[in-house]
Amino acid sequence: MKDIQSSKDTRGVEIQKVGIKDLEFPLVIQRKDAEDQVVYANTKVSVSLPAHYKGTHMSRFVEVLNEWRNKELSVDIQGCIADVVEKLSAKSGYMKLKFKYFIDKKSPVTGIIAPMCYDCSFEGVLNNYGEEDEEYEFILGVKVPVTTLCPCSKEISQYGAHNQRALVSVKIKYDDDAHIWLEDLIKMIEGCSSCELYSLLKREDEKYVTEHAYNNPKFVEDVLRDVVLELRNNPVIDWFEVECESIESIHNHSAWAYQKEG
Amino acid sequence: MKDIQSSKDTRGVEIQKVGIKDLEFPLVIQRKDAEDQVVYANTKVSVSLPAHYKGTHMSRFVEVLNEWRNKELSVDIQGCIADVVEKLSAKSGYMKLKFKYFIDKKSPVTGIIAPMCYDCSFEGVLNNYGEEDEEYEFILGVKVPVTTLCPCSKEISQYGAHNQRALVSVKIKYDDDAHIWLEDLIKMIEGCSSCELYSLLKREDEKYVTEHAYNNPKFVEDVLRDVVLELRNNPVIDWFEVECESIESIHNHSAWAYQKEG
Amino acid sequence: MKDIQSSKDTRGVEIQKVGIKDLEFPLVIQRKDAEDQVVYANTKVSVSLPAHYKGTHMSRFVEVLNEWRNKELSVDIQGCIADVVEKLSAKSGYMKLKFKYFIDKKSPVTGIIAPMCYDCSFEGVLNNYGEEDEEYEFILGVKVPVTTLCPCSKEISQYGAHNQRALVSVKIKYDDDAHIWLEDLIKMIEGCSSCELYSLLKREDEKYVTEHAYNNPKFVEDVLRDVVLELRNNPVIDWFEVECESIESIHNHSAWAYQKEG
Amino acid sequence: MKDIQSSKDTRGVEIQKVGIKDLEFPLVIQRKDAEDQVVYANTKVSVSLPAHYKGTHMSRFVEVLNEWRNKELSVDIQGCIADVVEKLSAKSGYMKLKFKYFIDKKSPVTGIIAPMCYDCSFEGVLNNYGEEDEEYEFILGVKVPVTTLCPCSKEISQYGAHNQRALVSVKIKYDDDAHIWLEDLIKMIEGCSSCELYSLLKREDEKYVTEHAYNNPKFVEDVLRDVVLELRNNPVIDWFEVECESIESIHNHSAWAYQKEG
Repeated sequence: MKDIQSSKDTRGVEIQKVGIKDLEFPLVIQRKDAEDQVVYANTKVSVSLPAHYKGTHMSRFVEVLNEWRNKELSVDIQGCIADVVEKLSAKSGYMKLKFKYFIDKKSPVTGIIAPMCYDCSFEGVLNNYGEEDEEYEFILGVKVPVTTLCPCSKEISQYGAHNQRALVSVKIKYDDDAHIWLEDLIKMIEGCSSCELYSLLKREDEKYVTEHAYNNPKFVEDVLRDVVLELRNNPVIDWFEVECESIESIHNHSAWAYQKEG
Repeated sequence: MKDIQSSKDTRGVEIQKVGIKDLEFPLVIQRKDAEDQVVYANTKVSVSLPAHYKGTHMSRFVEVLNEWRNKELSVDIQGCIADVVEKLSAKSGYMKLKFKYFIDKKSPVTGIIAPMCYDCSFEGVLNNYGEEDEEYEFILGVKVPVTTLCPCSKEISQYGAHNQRALVSVKIKYDDDAHIWLEDLIKMIEGCSSCELYSLLKREDEKYVTEHAYNNPKFVEDVLRDVVLELRNNPVIDWFEVECESIESIHNHSAWAYQKEG
Repeated sequence: MKDIQSSKDTRGVEIQKVGIKDLEFPLVIQRKDAEDQVVYANTKVSVSLPAHYKGTHMSRFVEVLNEWRNKELSVDIQGCIADVVEKLSAKSGYMKLKFKYFIDKKSPVTGIIAPMCYDCSFEGVLNNYGEEDEEYEFILGVKVPVTTLCPCSKEISQYGAHNQRALVSVKIKYDDDAHIWLEDLIKMIEGCSSCELYSLLKREDEKYVTEHAYNNPKFVEDVLRDVVLELRNNPVIDWFEVECESIESIHNHSAWAYQKEG
Repeated sequence: MKDIQSSKDTRGVEIQKVGIKDLEFPLVIQRKDAEDQVVYANTKVSVSLPAHYKGTHMSRFVEVLNEWRNKELSVDIQGCIADVVEKLSAKSGYMKLKFKYFIDKKSPVTGIIAPMCYDCSFEGVLNNYGEEDEEYEFILGVKVPVTTLCPCSKEISQYGAHNQRALVSVKIKYDDDAHIWLEDLIKMIEGCSSCELYSLLKREDEKYVTEHAYNNPKFVEDVLRDVVLELRNNPVIDWFEVECESIESIHNHSAWAYQKEG
């Protein structure tokens, strides 16, 4: 059976990334201080393709994921990308996994435990595989829902202050020999908000989060700056991107702030 | 060229609805006290198909929409559905249009005017077309973003109260000889919330909406009940469905209430 | 601390459904011939609320889910809904769980196994709980991606035929003493298409699925009718709703067919 | 009334982008060889914020959009961004508009005209406003749905070939004194596919597009390379990003290729 993909291409265009997108796949993630967690990842996996080949072999991406299905991916995915690059005889490879990650949280006063869900991502780029100048980059991503309470609204109003759910999205790169757990990154981000969120709050807890948010008014600018300072002050973090979006309770649009450094 | 669609089907299954979905199409809507508005509608159009025909003729749905492109659809779509049913030689027809609708709103204190966007829908069902028992039903739908401020949080906290954006979705059927404008339906719904939303608020306005919401605490249950009472008390409304969803600022999930009557 | 929710409401509106929506929660589903599967469910849970109460107690919904977190939900959720209704002292309760479900599939020629993901749902309604006329209804839902190849395009063209991914959504109710597995329902639906989909296909498999689809041209009308006949012929199924949507490869909209019976 | 936003911030973090996101707003776009088109844009607008200010003034973004509501934005948005930067006394500004754009297309054989909808975007960055080193960049974006027919499937199968809808997303930057119309960019991209899409096709047209796609089999790699060559060969284009995603008819995931140059 003819291998069309391997036939010669004469257009002279080396492709940077070609592969598969939106394959839903079960994988296993290592947790901090806990058992591994099965995650259902939305995957994007690709390799580079030399100019002289017509196409890549799409089925091999799924074959490699299949082999990694029950291995522990840890917070890192370099091994899996290396297998992809190897199997496709490519020079470089790329993988992005997006998944829901659950963490048990204790409510602030009554201490009841319930799971909170966070949208997380692992992204890895492996260039010049097997060469002297091989390089690997890993990006850890998380989207953390929090409360923001408006300092302006609080200041100018006789009582009350508008507040709302906000989303803080953070992506980071860090030193090869360091390791940053999703659990710790999420906790840091939650600490920069007017108040963190919970799945389960009894009345005593609700009183606490209401008053705590009122005592910690924050614009998206404030949340962004506090997260930026935390990331700047972490010596193992080399690069970051932060976004804060408040789903304004008084508008039908969001307030938004963005920073990229490193 | 053979007409496969018209060939005989022997499975004996009369199909209730068959047609097209997710066709984006420009149409013209009549506004209250204003010029017509061009809307970009996400359309679903279908007809019934007798058991003995293999298929319907999909291109004809688009042909009819094409003919209606520059006509004024008013808030009603019966004429367009009738054309579809006629052209497809069907017994009954269905159409749903979902579109963004813009209304100029004045901010509550400074009176500045800016457009607000609402997700609206027109839905029509025409049965037994041309028969004695022909019947037509029209459903007007709108999703209105508002503020809800939690009565429990206000009561139990020393200061502040959590509040958030909420979405009130309403669908109604009304008497054939009556007409309900989107503008009026939206205004009624906004009046049932803790406070309505605006695209543009200066500082004096923000003080007003903050205090107004604090003075009108409402659970999703309260918003729902107030909307339900308004709809029950409108003599031309025969049927309604109401949903209220608060995008809780203290949780990563929503509070939700639902009612269908008539 | 005052219980605002339990305070008296005088508007006289009994609420049909009030509760929580879009809570992401880990639960355990029983599989056919296999170990249980952890699923990450998007949950909607509600109860009815008598006219004289101002509000329901939102935290209790999460408390009940928390208790059910490690229990096996089987394909049924009546027990969990009963716990909700009991805990909220309500007359009726409702729950909907939407989740991704993975099934290992063997490719048609080379027989390689890889997981396929399906969007599934469990929906339950419990009315008049504890009364003589207590009634429970369960709806099993699944969205199955398949291939459809156009019979008209095949007939009129000298070679080739347009084909595309299509989505077949089915919801069913069945007898209390019967049990229908997701695995079986999905397999039946896939059998009604031009060809079923796979995560992993080698070249021999791709030849097979290409030719198999070409030999089984089907309109959305055909897929719908074949699924409807299967459901009609299953004596334990009392009610069903079927939708088939082809993401047309020659248009930027879908072909769509719909049927509800029972 | 106190202006909290203008109060002093001591954290020393200059913010790169702060503003509003997801404001739906009606604007007017200049068309090629035709009347202007009203578009309903999803807008993101931001400015930079000096380290010593606590916050930006969110209402002013909406005020500027309000002023531009009935002006013709052309395919460029520099003037509007300059107004934003001016009004907010900022150093730099950013704006992104995403909108649906309709173009009338003639079917290939019968020549019937019907509108096709394309997701388009205008993105502009204005840095060091009013300084000697002021610079402005504009990015034109479009997502074009097309057909791809698999060369491998065609080659190895006795008859037929799997094909599907694919999305080609292109972003470009071009010389200041040049102008590229959405209409021309879209036409070029459609020409690089196995076949372009239409809203309305009669049977003669369907025969044509079926056979045309079969005669022009293309992997995502092929579409990407052909688009890349077109963009490389256009002397006024300085930078581009191309993505091609085939919504595979034989899988539940996509084939995907990506390139960025310039």
